[in-house]
Amino acid sequence: MRVRIKDIAEKTGLSVSTVSLVLSKKEHRIPDETCKRVIDIAKELHYRPNQMAASLVTQRTKTIGLIIPDITNMFFAEIAKSAENECQKAGYSIILCNTNDNPQSDIDYVNMLVGRGVDGILFAMAVNATVNKAEECFAISHQFEKPIILVDRVVPGLNTVCVLSDNEMGGYIATRHLLELGHKKIGCITGPMGAQSSKQRLFGYIRALQEYGVAFDTSYIKEGNYHTPSGFALSKELFELDVTAIFACNDMMAYGVYKQAASNGKKIPEDLSIVGFDDLQFSELMEVPLTSVSQPAIEMGQSAVEMMIEWIDHPDQQPENITFKSELVIRKSTAMPSGKVKKAN
Amino acid sequence: MRVRIKDIAEKTGLSVSTVSLVLSKKEHRIPDETCKRVIDIAKELHYRPNQMAASLVTQRTKTIGLIIPDITNMFFAEIAKSAENECQKAGYSIILCNTNDNPQSDIDYVNMLVGRGVDGILFAMAVNATVNKAEECFAISHQFEKPIILVDRVVPGLNTVCVLSDNEMGGYIATRHLLELGHKKIGCITGPMGAQSSKQRLFGYIRALQEYGVAFDTSYIKEGNYHTPSGFALSKELFELDVTAIFACNDMMAYGVYKQAASNGKKIPEDLSIVGFDDLQFSELMEVPLTSVSQPAIEMGQSAVEMMIEWIDHPDQQPENITFKSELVIRKSTAMPSGKVKKAN
Repeated sequence: MRVRIKDIAEKTGLSVSTVSLVLSKKEHRIPDETCKRVIDIAKELHYRPNQMAASLVTQRTKTIGLIIPDITNMFFAEIAKSAENECQKAGYSIILCNTNDNPQSDIDYVNMLVGRGVDGILFAMAVNATVNKAEECFAISHQFEKPIILVDRVVPGLNTVCVLSDNEMGGYIATRHLLELGHKKIGCITGPMGAQSSKQRLFGYIRALQEYGVAFDTSYIKEGNYHTPSGFALSKELFELDVTAIFACNDMMAYGVYKQAASNGKKIPEDLSIVGFDDLQFSELMEVPLTSVSQPAIEMGQSAVEMMIEWIDHPDQQPENITFKSELVIRKSTAMPSGKVKKAN
Repeated sequence: MRVRIKDIAEKTGLSVSTVSLVLSKKEHRIPDETCKRVIDIAKELHYRPNQMAASLVTQRTKTIGLIIPDITNMFFAEIAKSAENECQKAGYSIILCNTNDNPQSDIDYVNMLVGRGVDGILFAMAVNATVNKAEECFAISHQFEKPIILVDRVVPGLNTVCVLSDNEMGGYIATRHLLELGHKKIGCITGPMGAQSSKQRLFGYIRALQEYGVAFDTSYIKEGNYHTPSGFALSKELFELDVTAIFACNDMMAYGVYKQAASNGKKIPEDLSIVGFDDLQFSELMEVPLTSVSQPAIEMGQSAVEMMIEWIDHPDQQPENITFKSELVIRKSTAMPSGKVKKAN
């Protein structure tokens, strides 16, 4: 049975209010020795505060909902891990919600989470979330006065608080790297065009081409879906156009490009340079380690939780958006079109 | 503000008890038309039951704690995903706890979860959990009458409910496959010997060798830690013993073996056969796709939740343990010692 404050009071011979004050961690003037006695007995009896009862008083549950498209996507797994770690330090817990990229699930989970009385929601929306669906989510959370912070995925046109990485810049530095190596025929395999991250990465690709005076050819752009088979299928189409390099808008699709290259007897990087995006842990384990744009998933999860707790504590102070820089991690999958690695100057 | 049953009663002109009965999903004899009116208005007003208040009445929170060592380990990510999916169907939520394989965190999280009043705990213990630490976890949950089901990782000598895959059989079929191809000098890179899964896989390796009459040489067994760098380092030691095949007790370490093979100019499978364990999604994406023992992570997560909910509903009926079969997925990383792929009979 659950041990109550009354039980500790009985065992120590102190009053309920004294025990309660010691265990509440509020300020008090009770002698250290008495405190120690209470805490020792509480430990001995395995006393634990009743969170449910506490929640009804404070109207806080010290829980944060985390809605993500797919926990088996390593990028979201890393966000979840660092967010959970940060929550735990602050006495919060994470309720995990996995939508499988279904926009209707987004709404269902927001409903469920407000019903559970979470204190806030961290939200990476489904990849094809429409403005309408997103507005519905925000309407629900607004009605229940629960803050939402969008993580990684945004819907344009909504005035929301976001924690993002700079996708446009990521697409730009990936493409610039290939241009600097001397490539001109650079294919781009995008994510689904419904996803803002995907559009931004493509915009970065286009900006880099323009800056380097390389004609922009739409036939070099293929719309994928962020999954490996689309990288495999679409790189075949790009090979027919004799591209010398491919920017895949995520690593999962880049792995598909590797497979297609192997099927076609193309060597990486001699015959084909590849840049990915996300820098998954497997990318450096590939036989030819993949050059990739790294997003700071750990910092993103951590910052999102810090901002959320700050916002919960100060509901009138809406936090500022944060955009993290992406970085290019250069490995062995990129080289000059001739196949030779460029010498450092 | 939160919409109450009273608000719906007012708007529909029905009594509070009628509205309450309709929304409770309990049996009743209220006409369909009236039900529809209540439900329509409830939807219009975005009514959501107050889970906190309901929990105090039912003493159920409809939450299940999930304690795992590392959500960025794909195997646990798949378990978490399927467990969450199964919970969601039954109206439960998952509280995610990530221990980083720290046995003290196991205890802290069990404490936290019972404090939050979860209805049960799914628990994959830290890899070096001792019997003492495990007993402490069970003592806490027992005191609070919260069922625990162990998933994947067990501590021997504890009478507990478990959902496992057959690790011994997995180690056996991995090794038998190499023996059938004609290998005799087969190295084994184990996980940490504190982990039951690791011991069992090694036992399977030893049993297969014995059955095939191959002398068992302890110098061929190297203790790793389930992480890639240990596979890299230990395979170098095995190369010096001229092994022709390596059974790595998980895929992450097998990736390290690939790296070491590449550094030493050894071709897979011509010069070296490799079998892994876990069948991570990346294993088929490797340039030489990895032969690996597949554990049914999705089924394990799903069954664990089904068993838990059944147990919560019938506390006196302790569920039976489940052990899932492992399967060998044969890909391109294994061949006869000569390097030739064995012909099918």
